[in-house]
Amino acid sequence: MNPQNPLDNVRIILSHTSHPGNIGASARAMKTMGLSSLVMVNPTHFPDHEADMLAAGALDVLTEARVCVSLDEALSGTVLAAALSARPRELSHNAYYAKQAAGILLEQARHHPVALVFGGETSGLSNEEAIKCQMLVYIPANPEYASLNLAAAVQVMCYELRLALENPPARESEFESATFEEIEMFYRQLEKTMVSTGYLNPDQPKRLLERLRRLFARARLEKEEVNILRGILKALSKHS
Amino acid sequence: MNPQNPLDNVRIILSHTSHPGNIGASARAMKTMGLSSLVMVNPTHFPDHEADMLAAGALDVLTEARVCVSLDEALSGTVLAAALSARPRELSHNAYYAKQAAGILLEQARHHPVALVFGGETSGLSNEEAIKCQMLVYIPANPEYASLNLAAAVQVMCYELRLALENPPARESEFESATFEEIEMFYRQLEKTMVSTGYLNPDQPKRLLERLRRLFARARLEKEEVNILRGILKALSKHS
Repeated sequence: MNPQNPLDNVRIILSHTSHPGNIGASARAMKTMGLSSLVMVNPTHFPDHEADMLAAGALDVLTEARVCVSLDEALSGTVLAAALSARPRELSHNAYYAKQAAGILLEQARHHPVALVFGGETSGLSNEEAIKCQMLVYIPANPEYASLNLAAAVQVMCYELRLALENPPARESEFESATFEEIEMFYRQLEKTMVSTGYLNPDQPKRLLERLRRLFARARLEKEEVNILRGILKALSKHS
Repeated sequence: MNPQNPLDNVRIILSHTSHPGNIGASARAMKTMGLSSLVMVNPTHFPDHEADMLAAGALDVLTEARVCVSLDEALSGTVLAAALSARPRELSHNAYYAKQAAGILLEQARHHPVALVFGGETSGLSNEEAIKCQMLVYIPANPEYASLNLAAAVQVMCYELRLALENPPARESEFESATFEEIEMFYRQLEKTMVSTGYLNPDQPKRLLERLRRLFARARLEKEEVNILRGILKALSKHS
């Protein structure tokens, strides 16, 4: 199966937002990072002209947003929910920094809907709301003034989700790793091709081959990647 | 010497900002991450009530901000300046992603003043302004809508600076990382070569190129590695 974009599976939930400008700015923040699923729980004003203004080119995110009457309704269908929190809580939650949380959420979002929940501007999430989530998330901040604007917090979290999408951790569950033999066959083919074009002097191959081995070792090649790379080399050799 | 907090050495420069709200929101974004040095070049409205409102608890950053008449004046005394850019430019700059740029700036800021320069809301920095900086910075974003709000971009960059402060890189590899442009030039050459051999159908290139980008992104290419890879492609193309 070729999964949809995992970011489509990440629901941003804004609970009890007071300022409609923050809703619009959050929609814009989401879209700049490739997210589109916005859900509100009892917003004070929505729809609202100021929200539309601040959404700028992300008006479609607002138009398709859902409004719910409870966090339960907003979380319906998700398998994992993370609550943004500016302060430690006396709850039995796992707490993560923004980057770690984004990695965990994105991994789940490859297969199931997940949610990131943001509380209102003044008092954040209630304990009753936070307890419905399975993770707490902290954005690293100045301990003397950690009060990020709501839409700014949405921007940082969506940014980390995008980074998690673009730079997945070394180990991937989705794709199968190449075996030792497959990788060695690729190196042999690469060496042969380089020698045949004169790029590599077979009498002094060592340093160059070592550099290439080091590069591909760092990437931890997957089966399909080895096939692609070998396919390219084969096409080039045939062509020449 | 026990140096001051390096974040105190990072100057945020807002050039030709139109909306005072963005100035206030930027001040708040800065303070939440521990930055305090704000400099404006020809803001349309400043001081301004809306800027004060949106600064919230960061009013002190606004009060101590400087207003300059030119970018030259704003950059005075800095040893390194990075220009935020949403689009590639035809300049001989090194370009970096937000995280890399933050690491480089913070390293310099341990000893000298540095600057991060943000252009106006509508058209960003002029080429005349960008050319006065030594680095270009891109925030990874949705290619279909990459238009971050100004204060949101300030928030992301200040967040990365804070991460760079809190999590300095373990030990830098002895080899220098390739820049954004160098890597993009490699991808272009790779694509061209694959198309010319018929391995890649230019009408349906997407998935294959994405897989290759994903592979090399994981490896975090170094300068010399890009040179080697491009050398191989060049030798193969000549030969054919």
